[in-house]
Amino acid sequence: MSKLIEKQLNSTSVFDGVLLHVKKDEIELPNGRKSVREYIKHPGAVCVIPIDGDGNVIIERQYRYPVGEILIEIPAGKLNSREEDPEDACRRELREETGYVAGKLTYLGFFYPSPAYTDERIYMYMAEELSLGERELDDDEFIDVERIPFETLYGEVIAGNIRDIKTQACVLRAKELLKK
Amino acid sequence: MSKLIEKQLNSTSVFDGVLLHVKKDEIELPNGRKSVREYIKHPGAVCVIPIDGDGNVIIERQYRYPVGEILIEIPAGKLNSREEDPEDACRRELREETGYVAGKLTYLGFFYPSPAYTDERIYMYMAEELSLGERELDDDEFIDVERIPFETLYGEVIAGNIRDIKTQACVLRAKELLKK
Repeated sequence: MSKLIEKQLNSTSVFDGVLLHVKKDEIELPNGRKSVREYIKHPGAVCVIPIDGDGNVIIERQYRYPVGEILIEIPAGKLNSREEDPEDACRRELREETGYVAGKLTYLGFFYPSPAYTDERIYMYMAEELSLGERELDDDEFIDVERIPFETLYGEVIAGNIRDIKTQACVLRAKELLKK
Repeated sequence: MSKLIEKQLNSTSVFDGVLLHVKKDEIELPNGRKSVREYIKHPGAVCVIPIDGDGNVIIERQYRYPVGEILIEIPAGKLNSREEDPEDACRRELREETGYVAGKLTYLGFFYPSPAYTDERIYMYMAEELSLGERELDDDEFIDVERIPFETLYGEVIAGNIRDIKTQACVLRAKELLKK
């Protein structure tokens, strides 16, 4: 399978922003020809589906500027650095965005949202045994927090009404776990 | 809920590459303060889970340079333009990458892979009643095509072994449809 692998020839930073860091690399294709790969370097992120004792999911409504819509999402956020433990980041983002502290966290695996153009990994968790701590939003974060019965949210995913992929993925994975 | 909305003040192109088009906008936050949003403009994409008459999924192994791994993925590709009909793009990508032509296509909804920093939408389809056409890869595409029983692939998703999110999402959604 090594015949699929592409080799880096050189790498250039083409944009270093506040959020986005964009690279452009010259590469050698498996057939020896040259090509270019443009992509984003990302520290990684976490997302968490918090489920309370009554079977409600804590969800957020947040305006996502790039898509121009208010989306329903589960809590999520970036790692502070590539070295941060995703579980620490998960506990932090859950508390900061919703105020909730998780008594029990279950790791659901990670995924690549767009492996063609970013190295971002998103680590998924399910949070249970919730207790209330202190909410603490970033200066440029505006988020409404609500609760919705798990089965209602699951129905919305199946109906195609949840457009954020991490939310779709965690709801579908949690459904499998909750069956057991 | 309009209190969540962010208003564009101005927009600048900071990188115009072959694949990536990066914007940096100054915006007004809901509280009237200013901030910056950096994001990618993307024409949109499609992905398709092709299932043959024996219940096998046609999958691909492809090296994804940004993450440095060979990933198992379902067929997928970008729209030729923002105006292209996603169903046309789905039929094209399926045939070009795998050689298969779909007798029946079922739309599974769309998702935003990373709404914090790209406007990309990925439209999902399930393809059935497959017949063989002509494969036609792009010059810089190197893809191995295999088939795997649906239930095996589903087990790999649940076990956390499928790292590409569009593949996870379509397998989980197809599982729901195939139950019926």
